[in-house]
Amino acid sequence: MPVFLDTTQSDFETAFAELLSAKREDSPDVDDIVAKIIADVRARGDEAVLELTSKFDRLDLNPEGMRFTDAEIDAFCAQVPDAERAALEQAAERIRAYHVRQMPEDQLWTDADGATLGWRWTPVSAAGLYVPGGLASYPSSVLMNAIPAKVAGVERLAITVPTPDGAVNPLILLAAKIAGVDEVYRIGGAQAVAALAYGTQTIAPVDKITGPGNAFVAAAKRRVFGKVGIDMIAGPSEILVIADADNDPDWLALDLMSQAEHDESAQSLLITTDAAFGRAVAGAVDKRLETLERRAIAGASWRDFGAVITVRDLDEAAALSNRIAPEHLELCVADPDALSEKCTHAGAIFLGQWTPEAIGDYVGGPNHVLPTARSARFSSGLSVMDFVKRTTLAKMTPDALRAIGPAAETLAKSESLEAHGLSVTARLEKLNR
Amino acid sequence: MPVFLDTTQSDFETAFAELLSAKREDSPDVDDIVAKIIADVRARGDEAVLELTSKFDRLDLNPEGMRFTDAEIDAFCAQVPDAERAALEQAAERIRAYHVRQMPEDQLWTDADGATLGWRWTPVSAAGLYVPGGLASYPSSVLMNAIPAKVAGVERLAITVPTPDGAVNPLILLAAKIAGVDEVYRIGGAQAVAALAYGTQTIAPVDKITGPGNAFVAAAKRRVFGKVGIDMIAGPSEILVIADADNDPDWLALDLMSQAEHDESAQSLLITTDAAFGRAVAGAVDKRLETLERRAIAGASWRDFGAVITVRDLDEAAALSNRIAPEHLELCVADPDALSEKCTHAGAIFLGQWTPEAIGDYVGGPNHVLPTARSARFSSGLSVMDFVKRTTLAKMTPDALRAIGPAAETLAKSESLEAHGLSVTARLEKLNR
Repeated sequence: MPVFLDTTQSDFETAFAELLSAKREDSPDVDDIVAKIIADVRARGDEAVLELTSKFDRLDLNPEGMRFTDAEIDAFCAQVPDAERAALEQAAERIRAYHVRQMPEDQLWTDADGATLGWRWTPVSAAGLYVPGGLASYPSSVLMNAIPAKVAGVERLAITVPTPDGAVNPLILLAAKIAGVDEVYRIGGAQAVAALAYGTQTIAPVDKITGPGNAFVAAAKRRVFGKVGIDMIAGPSEILVIADADNDPDWLALDLMSQAEHDESAQSLLITTDAAFGRAVAGAVDKRLETLERRAIAGASWRDFGAVITVRDLDEAAALSNRIAPEHLELCVADPDALSEKCTHAGAIFLGQWTPEAIGDYVGGPNHVLPTARSARFSSGLSVMDFVKRTTLAKMTPDALRAIGPAAETLAKSESLEAHGLSVTARLEKLNR
Repeated sequence: MPVFLDTTQSDFETAFAELLSAKREDSPDVDDIVAKIIADVRARGDEAVLELTSKFDRLDLNPEGMRFTDAEIDAFCAQVPDAERAALEQAAERIRAYHVRQMPEDQLWTDADGATLGWRWTPVSAAGLYVPGGLASYPSSVLMNAIPAKVAGVERLAITVPTPDGAVNPLILLAAKIAGVDEVYRIGGAQAVAALAYGTQTIAPVDKITGPGNAFVAAAKRRVFGKVGIDMIAGPSEILVIADADNDPDWLALDLMSQAEHDESAQSLLITTDAAFGRAVAGAVDKRLETLERRAIAGASWRDFGAVITVRDLDEAAALSNRIAPEHLELCVADPDALSEKCTHAGAIFLGQWTPEAIGDYVGGPNHVLPTARSARFSSGLSVMDFVKRTTLAKMTPDALRAIGPAAETLAKSESLEAHGLSVTARLEKLNR
């Protein structure tokens, strides 16, 4: 049973605060192991990666076998049925069309003092994308990570995907091919992250690493951060549905379960203005949990972390939503656009009853890599911006230096940075001679 | 003596690689101490912060004394001489004018399938800015961190600045006031970072923490990352000057020293097309090092990490610059704009001989918080973007769902996520009834 809360109850604030602070993830502390793996890969390169792949993935490779050849990729791709291929292509096209609009623009202007100022965006040269193997090996995630990188103009995009016991998911390779990935390696774990960050004899180092992974991968990404850029460290998935009574309880039950089925630590929340409707949705969830393939996972998530919250009105719903800062926010109300304006902290908003969250996971267009664990308060989903960086530009004329140089001299002096000041003074002296 | 390299030398590649990989910073491992401090502040709040402030800053406060009152701030600000005040105000105005242009735009459009898509930017609600005390207490850094936050629309901006033995730098308070900072606390170290991230009885928690600091502050920022957002972890400063022979050696010597005087671990590099000019600059540096106030620091940096590299032509210079990915890049050549186009990895570029880097530290307009240690390969300087986040928007109509829903069903099935698929199927069934 999920918890049932009501903002009119006297103990609501306590119960809601408890819900917000509930620790859903219990990551094992693998930092020491990961530190050793990274040091080993830095010291021994391919040799270390191959030993670790043999140990963890039960797969013996030689250096030449680490990378999928084009022929291998084509052969696996040929196994994918037409329907899946068409779906991946449609998804890729829509994701690309969305992300193309994210390309930021350069600016350059000259101000009243005669200073020319601006900035220029350039792509990261090389990026690496970690793709999990096994159960959580999602071709949609390949599209969501690779397409923004390629739209940004990343020249070299490498994927690592473990193939435990040699098992390959052809859809991963097809998604990589559709997205324009340049290199695919059959390695995984912390050793793959280390290889991408520091390079080996076979794998050239990259500048940025993105993509989801288990505790080892997450710890490795944290450790190589600084040497390379990383995206966020993703936590378990979440959805918040805000709904009035004018909805089909079964639809919302399925929306809630589509996050719950990811992970026992996932969280599915419903906020509604109608207590009876909330109970109806909970009933529909129970019914679906009788037959869902992943009912064990979804049921545990719903039981341990699910909640149905009744509110007085939608303003109250928006206020609670902003405290939750959900990864996914579905607004199933009469005027979702108006409510959306009030929801300022959310990774992605799905407007109206015809927009189930699952559309956003696959083919909507926006990215499905989104901030979890309340981090939508300060961060955004993956985008083209993650694969570009800004160089600021400044160019003074003699007149501009005359106008603003003296302030720099004064401030340099106040900070006891004499050479800073003198570098301006020397030039101004020449001008005033 | 800095190293002198020449790309025509047979051992150049080895020597340059060594220069690139030189470990300039030897951060003490303070992680265990910092973990304890954070746990203590989380458990005991104000009490822990006050004890640690007494211990490390030799300053005994009660909870009410942690925050500067408006009257205190005004009294300190009144001590600032007019020239400094005017310089800070001019700098603030220019920094604000530059950063206002960085505000990203919302987008919303409807595509051919009838799906309405887009995104919306919103500010972080509350941000904290760490300001170091003592020697590296720079009012210019207050402006550079606080102004982008306020331009972004951050409602609550809090500063922490340690005041060892009670010593207050009035310029810090004036810069905070000019920038529109809302709260200033006289605390520092890991305990200040912990207080900002987790909150205490006196200090409300923030969503994002930026600003430079020592090893303890850096370790604390790493640890609270995830609970709050952080900016980069800054390393020692760097400058690369690319120059032809048509420059005043003394000007460039001062530009090189203006980074070297920051820190013994700073790095100042000169790339020139003319070996004799390179030697002339080195000579000018030696001369300045006889009299500079901070000659001990600047001299050590120049001796241990400085380099003068002679190249065949400017294309070679640009290629080396891109491998260095400098924090600051000064282009003192006949056509700096043309060379700038080829320099794709740099935090900030200063174009032409009238643009000493120090202008960018204070009054140019662009931010002086920039990526160090080669991280300009994948990251950007501080900007308004650090204080906003993006919410993606998607709204399907029945027609849009008909057009793209089936692809989502197919992909959900291929990923064994049944509820994802059913959430689309249930809606399509209604439409097809």
